[in-house]
Parts: sequence; structure tokens; C-alpha cells
Amino acid sequence: MIIMETDATEEQVAEVVKEIEKYGLRADVSRGDYMTVIGPVGDERKLPFDRLAVLPGVKEATMVETPYKLISREYAKFFGEAGDRRVIRLGNVSIGSGEPVFIAGPCAVESREQIFKIAEGVKRAGAHILRGGVFKPRSSVHSFQGLGANGREGAEEALAWLREAGEEFELPVITEVRGEAQVDLVAKYTDILHIGARNMYDQDLLVQAARKRKPVLVKRHFGATIEEFLCFAEYVAAEGNKDIILCERGIVPVGRGKSYTRYVLDLAAVPVVQKETYLPVIVDPSHATGRRDLIFNMSCAAIAAGADGLMIEVHYDPREALVDGPQMITPDELKDVIDACRKVHKLVSSQQSNAKN
Amino acid sequence: MIIMETDATEEQVAEVVKEIEKYGLRADVSRGDYMTVIGPVGDERKLPFDRLAVLPGVKEATMVETPYKLISREYAKFFGEAGDRRVIRLGNVSIGSGEPVFIAGPCAVESREQIFKIAEGVKRAGAHILRGGVFKPRSSVHSFQGLGANGREGAEEALAWLREAGEEFELPVITEVRGEAQVDLVAKYTDILHIGARNMYDQDLLVQAARKRKPVLVKRHFGATIEEFLCFAEYVAAEGNKDIILCERGIVPVGRGKSYTRYVLDLAAVPVVQKETYLPVIVDPSHATGRRDLIFNMSCAAIAAGADGLMIEVHYDPREALVDGPQMITPDELKDVIDACRKVHKLVSSQQSNAKN
Amino acid sequence: MIIMETDATEEQVAEVVKEIEKYGLRADVSRGDYMTVIGPVGDERKLPFDRLAVLPGVKEATMVETPYKLISREYAKFFGEAGDRRVIRLGNVSIGSGEPVFIAGPCAVESREQIFKIAEGVKRAGAHILRGGVFKPRSSVHSFQGLGANGREGAEEALAWLREAGEEFELPVITEVRGEAQVDLVAKYTDILHIGARNMYDQDLLVQAARKRKPVLVKRHFGATIEEFLCFAEYVAAEGNKDIILCERGIVPVGRGKSYTRYVLDLAAVPVVQKETYLPVIVDPSHATGRRDLIFNMSCAAIAAGADGLMIEVHYDPREALVDGPQMITPDELKDVIDACRKVHKLVSSQQSNAKN
Amino acid sequence: MIIMETDATEEQVAEVVKEIEKYGLRADVSRGDYMTVIGPVGDERKLPFDRLAVLPGVKEATMVETPYKLISREYAKFFGEAGDRRVIRLGNVSIGSGEPVFIAGPCAVESREQIFKIAEGVKRAGAHILRGGVFKPRSSVHSFQGLGANGREGAEEALAWLREAGEEFELPVITEVRGEAQVDLVAKYTDILHIGARNMYDQDLLVQAARKRKPVLVKRHFGATIEEFLCFAEYVAAEGNKDIILCERGIVPVGRGKSYTRYVLDLAAVPVVQKETYLPVIVDPSHATGRRDLIFNMSCAAIAAGADGLMIEVHYDPREALVDGPQMITPDELKDVIDACRKVHKLVSSQQSNAKN
Repeated sequence: MIIMETDATEEQVAEVVKEIEKYGLRADVSRGDYMTVIGPVGDERKLPFDRLAVLPGVKEATMVETPYKLISREYAKFFGEAGDRRVIRLGNVSIGSGEPVFIAGPCAVESREQIFKIAEGVKRAGAHILRGGVFKPRSSVHSFQGLGANGREGAEEALAWLREAGEEFELPVITEVRGEAQVDLVAKYTDILHIGARNMYDQDLLVQAARKRKPVLVKRHFGATIEEFLCFAEYVAAEGNKDIILCERGIVPVGRGKSYTRYVLDLAAVPVVQKETYLPVIVDPSHATGRRDLIFNMSCAAIAAGADGLMIEVHYDPREALVDGPQMITPDELKDVIDACRKVHKLVSSQQSNAKN
Repeated sequence: MIIMETDATEEQVAEVVKEIEKYGLRADVSRGDYMTVIGPVGDERKLPFDRLAVLPGVKEATMVETPYKLISREYAKFFGEAGDRRVIRLGNVSIGSGEPVFIAGPCAVESREQIFKIAEGVKRAGAHILRGGVFKPRSSVHSFQGLGANGREGAEEALAWLREAGEEFELPVITEVRGEAQVDLVAKYTDILHIGARNMYDQDLLVQAARKRKPVLVKRHFGATIEEFLCFAEYVAAEGNKDIILCERGIVPVGRGKSYTRYVLDLAAVPVVQKETYLPVIVDPSHATGRRDLIFNMSCAAIAAGADGLMIEVHYDPREALVDGPQMITPDELKDVIDACRKVHKLVSSQQSNAKN
Repeated sequence: MIIMETDATEEQVAEVVKEIEKYGLRADVSRGDYMTVIGPVGDERKLPFDRLAVLPGVKEATMVETPYKLISREYAKFFGEAGDRRVIRLGNVSIGSGEPVFIAGPCAVESREQIFKIAEGVKRAGAHILRGGVFKPRSSVHSFQGLGANGREGAEEALAWLREAGEEFELPVITEVRGEAQVDLVAKYTDILHIGARNMYDQDLLVQAARKRKPVLVKRHFGATIEEFLCFAEYVAAEGNKDIILCERGIVPVGRGKSYTRYVLDLAAVPVVQKETYLPVIVDPSHATGRRDLIFNMSCAAIAAGADGLMIEVHYDPREALVDGPQMITPDELKDVIDACRKVHKLVSSQQSNAKN
Repeated sequence: MIIMETDATEEQVAEVVKEIEKYGLRADVSRGDYMTVIGPVGDERKLPFDRLAVLPGVKEATMVETPYKLISREYAKFFGEAGDRRVIRLGNVSIGSGEPVFIAGPCAVESREQIFKIAEGVKRAGAHILRGGVFKPRSSVHSFQGLGANGREGAEEALAWLREAGEEFELPVITEVRGEAQVDLVAKYTDILHIGARNMYDQDLLVQAARKRKPVLVKRHFGATIEEFLCFAEYVAAEGNKDIILCERGIVPVGRGKSYTRYVLDLAAVPVVQKETYLPVIVDPSHATGRRDLIFNMSCAAIAAGADGLMIEVHYDPREALVDGPQMITPDELKDVIDACRKVHKLVSSQQSNAKN
């Protein structure tokens, strides 16, 4: 990490970048309010920090040992993120600003009518962002793969419906991009690119998505440790895109026999990741539990743990949904969840600041 | 499960029990407010339910398929637990009554002075029950094993200090019983017998503890599924002791490398177990996370998830503690946690009942 | 699954396919020695099996419940795989033929000289196929990413070296394809397309790779159950490509603290997968253990468990390797492993057939 | 660890022990062929190694950092175990001597006739030691708990049958001791005390069993890391009993849905534990897989991995067995397994010594 003097010139920054590239690394340049920080991308052990430290305009040059340095709080401190937190703005919606954000919608876009009806419902319930899958990652090739499976035209039609529904109800939209070949198409219609849990380890997809310069939501793979999760989010940051939303959605259960929930929701990961990085962290209780009857409690628990938002699957008639029916709630139930979560957030954050004083 | 007529006589109950025992099973008799229910202990497939159903005084006789039937909500329905929940009373303290209960104290009793000082602190902070380990289960024989390791006298002295501290500050006490040989001694001094996570699979210990007719707190083993957890709690119930407190304290992490928390706290287990059984469920955020800086958030989250209480490790000077220092909080910090949790409980339960209406 | 009469005509087959497509499914047509079998790709519950069963030329039409039907042994029975096993042929090399196959080479291609030197060594040691990574999937963006990271030219140069080394020493070659964008390029130079463990869940990559009509080696993800592993291999088969090699390479360890091996090698998965499918199953002891000193024993164990081959990392000087040095063995050590494994295979298979008689 | 001079006197040894005890630790004294080694039991950081090093007769005094030092190979080096391996002798049977040892018998002793019939069968098949459970650890209180559940008389009768069957067919016997209260009774009838996987964490039971001065077989808990496994075996060694047999029997699977095997057999644990300790390591493929059809392959694989023996469940009619029928093999099948394993052992160990030369 190279911290530049407050009055360092663009030429001096360029000189440092050139020096870093000489050793086969790339450089991430973060311009903050007060200073500029340069993060080398690659094996820092190859860099001559002694030499970098005495270049003109350089205030400090030190090696960072953690494998996810560009998203770490340490790094944010210097380039001026307020309170070391990244706030991601999409029109009127701010993610990571201190107020919880609610992303809601169906697992899969099924028809124009369906997505409009749900968009209207989640807007009424108080949600901020509309979700809806077009390219569904499925374990079985024999299951419904989303409308994205109907060739380019089918995909584009479904994406357009999502976009229109979002515009109609003033909701930014998010949809999953499952493979590199879909990045251009999805980026054309969506405000946030969603990298699903199954694709978290797909570094080429992360890089392509990052280059679209739109916010990227990265879900934790169900077999990934927190460290791996952060290492793969770092691939997005290394492309110069720091608008990353991290999402905890449950990890694989251990042991034989009956599971009462689909995955194990690791809520302690929320404060842990917030302490490690400057990025907002949200929780998806729908996929984590797979059970409609647990959404209320686990949503409140996620917010109490400090989550910056929730992503919840909603359908006006869960029994009719083509995918994930058992975990969907109705717009009315969503309203109860959002109301409760807002109050829990307010209560816990005020108690917490009292506690610190 | 055999449900007796409301006016069934003791002779009729005895007749059913005798019939069950004829087939090599035992019988658990639960006398509720309105009726008596008899739960066979053993392989129900050996029983002639047709024949049992026509015995005098029998209203209904059906086979229950779940492996933990005596603690299941289904069973409670008939013998009259209010709202299908078990309330465990210890003097003025009620566990499972709707108000969260706080168990607090040091990991290990270290001296008379230490336990008195901590008892005073946790009482002041609002805790209801005092904890303190005398027989410490430790992974390494080379680590401090608690004062219980100093022979019978050392153990009894430490237990007596705990008891006295509890009486001085009007706090019922709980301590871990690690082996069968300790059951008599521990039961003499403690109000609740605590079966630690490592011993959850120790059915002989569970049986011995159950026979003391005191409440038994059973912690989930860190490698156990929810089903296994409930199956082993069933061993206590099968001895006729239904005063069981279940405690979630984290399960093993999956994956290689650095762990940011000691275990993975499975908060969804709280509502799941409450739906499966009529027993109170508490959470131990101290052992689950192993990190003092996560206790506040994870305690609020546990209560938001619906936990009936918390068990928290407290020390006036965590740096001095012989065991588990990094996860202990001070009495002042405990007060902040308890205050926040009470408010979270009140808020979430009122929002939840509004949501249902 | 629709089994056609032995003398069914092409028109009759086409008629069945057309009927299946009418319901929104695709059809996989397998022409065996004695009969043709048609496997619907998609949700079979939508198909009118009654109606399909009476179409001309149809012998039998039944629904298959397993999610991986096209690679299942059941399916193979009908289209005539000898002994229900798929044999994959690459020049003189047969995979799945009964004789174990050895794939060996460095983790990463580092230079022309390095890959030639290692190719010579593994050929001399008795290996059949040369491996070498060009596009390395890495957890950290700050680690060496393989020569494939040096843009298209760097990648093509490294792939060409691998190909030349393979031709020089008469070894078919295999290299990993990490993202969809690399499929064309990799397929141009390699005999087998290798889908790494991290990409196992990447269905779009699997589909693209399958379409190259070359054998595809699919590694089990370290967080995947056997069922998931087979479900994702099914994506390759659903493209009509049945030349699939399955590879067990270890699953994530459970629990805290020190791991003595990188992953847990699940050798029972070998006979399990061989019973479930008709595909060859190989084992990668190098990534599974991460320890050079365990390769000999775990290789023998894998072959004793019935593996159809091994994939082993080899370097003439493991200390020099840019990636995975601690798990590489030398060509001389490889020779010891191959010699021992051949004898173990011969011994165990002869004892096993004796045992069955 | 304190290494005494070759000619150190008993008084000098006693002096060192006294000094160690002064600091609240215990001392394990191992008298080898050439020298005596003293291992402190407890927190070595409390000991003044400088002072111990200059006591008369002391050659070397150093702190050992691993938590399982008394069973480590380092420790064995000095007290003269041949080749750093412990050989446990029971009459004509040697465990850890280089020849694989086969322990076989039913999961549960069901009747005198049953155990005699099986003893005859396993003897004929070539097994060395007879197993048979009397106290069965079961997940459900509603399942058959073994004849040990029929009170003290029932237990003693079943143990006597096992003993008689062993004597009749010249087979030492092993049975599980599930709780502390059973230690005296079981030790009266059995040659090896078996601590089951579920009880691995039960340190009080390990200590009681160790004190019987008979070999103790410790199974790895299905949720335990290798380090935890060794730490708990250390409890036996710390009682001065080094006749410990370690047994790998599978760890919990990770992930949702169908399991094809009961547990995941971690065969790499075999060479790992042999490198870490001087103790013999055996494998139980029956409980690990839960599938009769995998026993042959996984037994050969275990021996190829270097196991010192196997523990296999056998019944003359697996369909009739009260417990674990699906994983039992017949005596004839056992013979095939033993014959194959002996040959695999001979082959792999000779190849391995060739490889080293």
C-alpha cells in the first residue's frame, strides 16, 4: 500500500504506478478526499518498498499481508471513506448508509404480468430494490432454468420486463449474471450485477462483471470460509470497482440425515465482515433457511446482528412460483418484516451507541 | 403415544403401563391439567396399538414416528402445557415464560473472592442465574481443568463458593457436570445441571443427571445436527424429567484456514427447535464466537431470532481469567447487553404478534 | 427414458424427439449396439409417458426419478456400453478400460523448457497423459495466476508449449479451462478439457466445454456432495457429450484449528460413483492432501478403492515451482507410485473377482 | 520433556518428578531401553526449565509445544520404542507390529449362540480379535440399546458370553465401554477397552479406562479434527497407559440432501497420525460407510494407506442383526477381505521400502 502526500501531483502518482508495473504487478489507485492511496495488485513481495518509499510525493509505502487488502478497512482509512464505510448510491437508494436496505422480488421472472404485480407489491411493502432471476443457476439440468434459457431473445424479453417494472415503480433492479457470456446483456438492463453463491469462485466472471462499472453484489458460496469470500470480492476491487455489496446466504450444514433448514445462516459473519472491510453486508434469509415460516425471525436477527440490508424472495402466490415456492413470502408479509426490521435497526443501533458511551 | 380419557382412573393408567412393559418398553406418564398422556420409551413398532386402543380408559393410541417424541410439541398439546411451551421455575426465575432469561458468570470458578465479585456484578447488570465452571472439559490434558481437578475436596470447596455467592446475591446457580461420577456432588450444590457440548452424546451422563429431578441444561454438540441434539435431550425426558433447557452454542466451521469465530452460531436453530419441541431454547454467544467484540450484536440477534435467554461469560477483568479470557465481557458490558436484549425482545415479540393479526 | 425397439427406424426416433420437444424439453439420443435410448432433458413430469409409450417403434417409456439420469448406469444398460462402463479413448490411451491411467505434470506451465523437461520425466515414469495449468484459478488476486494471465498471446504461447511437449513425448495433454471465454482457445490445443473444482458449479462453462466434443474432466467441488457432483456432470451429458471423466480431489475439512491435509480425500466416493454411473473416476491425491509425503500411500489407497486412474502433480524440482511446491513429487517418485499402483490394481482386481466367484 | 542421563538413578528421577509436582503438574515417567524420559502433564509454561536442566542426572530439559506430547513420535524416540512405533501385545496377537490385525464380530452381542457362531466364523476367516457390543451408544432412546441395558445381570451375562466365545476360539475380545459406571465391569471381561466415537470427548471416561492398565482403543469422533483426536488420546497416555489403539471411522459429511455413505472415511488420517504419533492406527470401514458393498474396496484402500489393522462388523445373517444390518458382512466375505488385505499390505510395504531405497 502506497500512501501519497496530500499535495502529490498526478505525475507523481503515475510514476509510482509505472514503478509498480515494472515488477509485473498492476496498481489500484484510490483517490480520496484528502489523499490518494495506491494498492498493488499481485504479489507484493516482489516490490522494492524501500525504493517506492523515497519516490517523490510518496508519504508511506508498506506491505500489506492480508490477501484482501483493497477491500480492507485499513485501506479505506486513508482514501477518505466516511467512517471507513463505503456507501453505494443508486438514485435515491443508498446501500451502507446506516439505514437498512430491502431488496425483494421473485426468485425467477416468469412473465411480464408476474413481475409487475410483484414489483407493485414489494414497493408498497417498503422495499427499495427489485430482484428477479432470468438466468437461474440450477443443480439439475432437468429443472426450470429461468426464461434466460430460452435463447437470447427470451432472455432479453425477460430482462426488459424486469427493467420496465423497476421503472414503473421507481425501484432500481438487480438480476443474477451466471456466466461471462451474459455480462453485457445483463449489464444493459440491470442496476446491480448479482454474482450468485455458486459462481462466487468464478474469478473470470467477477472480473467481467466488475468492468461494467456498476455495483456488484457478491454472494458467499455455501462452502466458502469468510476469508475465501473476501478474497474473491477482492477480484472485483482489483478491477477498480469498489461498489461491492457482500451477501451472506447460508453455508452448508454438517452431519447426516434430516436438515431443518436448507443452509446454516452464519449471522456472525455480518459483524465480522464489517470489521474486516469497508463494504456493506446484506443477508438473504430466503435461500439460507428455505422456509417461509423462519423469514420474520431471521430477518430481525440479521438486522440486529448489524446487517446493512436484506434480500428476500417474494411472490403474491408462493404456491404458484416455478422455483423456490416454499421459501417465498407475500408482499403483505414482507411489509411486516420491513416494519419490524426498521424498528429493530433503530433500537439496536441506538442501544449500541449508548453502550459505547 | 396413548391419550387417556379425561376421567381415566389410576388403575386404568397402570394397566396401560403394564401392557407396554410386557413388550419390553418403558412408559413415560405425563399428567396434564385435562388429561394424561403415556409415551412408550423404546421401539414402538413392537407395540400392538390396536390392542392398546381398546383398553379401558384409553381415548387414543397412535404410533409416533419422530425419534424425539416425548419432547415434541405434539406430545405437549395433550398434557396441557400452556401454549405448548414448558415453563421451568426456579424460585423467582422462570425460563421459557416469554421474558428472556440471562445466565452469566465466569467460565471457571477461580476463587471465593472471584466468584463473589462476579456474582455481585452480574446481579447488578440484571442477570437471573449465576454460572461458573468447576469441572472444565478441556481439549488438552495439559490445560487448566478447573478447581474440580483438585480432588473431591477442591471440587466441593469450589461448588460451595458458587452456592454461597448465589445465595448472597439471590441468584440460582448452574455448573457443568462433566462425568457420571460428579453427578451426586454437583446436584448437591447447583440448581441446574449443565451438560456441556462435548458431553451431549454421553447418554449415561444424561440419564444420571435427569434422575436428580433438577432442571437439566443440554448444550448442542458442535458436530451435532438439530435432530441428534433433540434425540439426546429425549434421553432426559425418557427418565421422566421434562425440565430441559436446550442451548445452541455454535457448530464447527467448514473449510480450511483462518476462522474469524470459534464456531458458527446457528441462530435459525432457535425458532426451529421451538417449533419442534415445547422446551425453552437459549443461546451461548460467548463460546459460539469466542470474541468479546461480537457479544453485543450476536446477543441482540439471538433474542431477535426468538431465544428464551442467553448464557454469557463475564469477568471483572477478562485479561486475568484463567480460561476463555478473549470471549468474556465485563459486568458493565453485560448490563448494556441485557438492556438492549430486553428491548429487542419486547419489540420483536410485539411486532410478531401484530404481524399475525 | 424412452427405449426404442431394436428395429426402430430413424423416422420413429425423430418422431419421439419431436414429441418430447413439443413439451419444452430437449432429447438426448444414445445409439447403442443393440438399441437406441432417448433421454429427455428437462422436467420429465411434463411428459405424457402414456402417449410416448404407444408411439411406433417405442418399446418402453418410463420416468426416471434421479436428477442425473443420462450418466446413470441404468441408462447405459440399454445403449450397450460394455459392462455398463464408458471407455474414453485418446490415441493409444484408454480411460476406464480396466487399466489405471496416470495423468501427471506440473501445476502450472512456467516455461517451454520446464514443461518439456517434466514431460520427458513423466513419460519415463510411465504416465499416459500430460497435465499443465495455463489459466490458474487462485483464491487471491495477488497470487500468480498462470501464464494465461499474460493476455491472449501469453496464454496461446503457453498452450502451444504444452501441446508440443505432449507431441514430442507422445502424451495426450490436458489443461484447465477456467472461464467460458477460454473454451475455444483451450480446445484448440488440448485433448481433454479440465473443469477445475472451483468451477464445478459453473453450468455455462460445462455446457460450452461439452460442445467442443472432446473429453471433459470434471473435478468435484470441495463443498459438493456426491449428488451435486453428478448433477453438474449431467450438464455435459445433456449436451450429448458422454466422454466425461470424474475426478475426486478432496472435500473441505470440518472443525477448527490446524489441518494436517489441505482437504479430506473422500475415497469411498470412488466406488460409490462407479456404482451410480458408467463413467470413469480418477483421484487427485496432490490437491487433496497438499503433502508430497502422503502421495505414495494415498495413490495406492485410491487404486485399491477402485479408481480408474490418478492425476498427480510432478516437478523436477518442487522447491522451485511457482505454485503448489509442497505437494509435488519428482519424476522418480512418480515412477515408484505408478509401479506400485499398477501392482495394487492387478492384485485387488484379481482378488475381487475371486471373491465374487 | 526431561531426558535423563543413561546412568541416572531412581533417586534422580524422583527428584525431577518432585520438582515438577511442586509447580502443580504431574509427571509421566517412561523408562526405555536406553534412557528414561519424563513428560510433565499440565501447563509446561509454569515449569522452570532452566532449573530442571541443571538437576543431577538430567541430560536435557525442553518445553514441548504440541498439545499431545506424550503420544508424539518425538517423545518415543528417546525412550526406545523400536522404530518409534508402539507394539501392543495380547497373547499371540501383536498390534502395530507391521502385520495388519483384524478385529471382527457383530455390532451387538444378541445371544450366547449368536456370539459363538460368529466367533467361529471370524476365527475361520482369519481374524485375530473378537468384537461384540454390550452397551450400545444409540442416537435414539427408542432404539435397541444392547443387552447391557438389561441391568447389571443382563450386562454381565452378555459380557461373559463374549469372553467365553473368545476363549473357545482363542480370540482376545474387545467391547465398548460407554460410561464411567461400566468401566469396572467391562474391564473384568474384556482384553481391550473400546471408547466409541460418541464418547471420544469424554475425558473422565478416558481417564477411568486408562487406569485399568489394559489396552484402550479410542475411536475418532465424527466431528473431531485430527488434532482433537490426538489430544483426547493424550488423556489416556497421561495416566501412564501408552497401550492406545487409534481408530479412524469416518467423519461427518458436509452438505445437504442424500448421503451415499454414512460418514466420510478420512483415510489420509492414517499416515498422518502415524507420522504424528508412535501409536498403531486402525480403520473401521463398517461404520464409516454403512454399506456392505463398499467394505471390500475400502478395506483394501485402508491397508494400502498404511493402516495397522481393521475393525469390521460381521454377522452370519446380516438381515437378522438387531443393529447395523446393512453394513455387516458374512464370515465368508470377511475371509475374502482378510486375504486381499494381507496381500495388499505385503505388496504396498515392499514397494514402499523399495521406493525409499
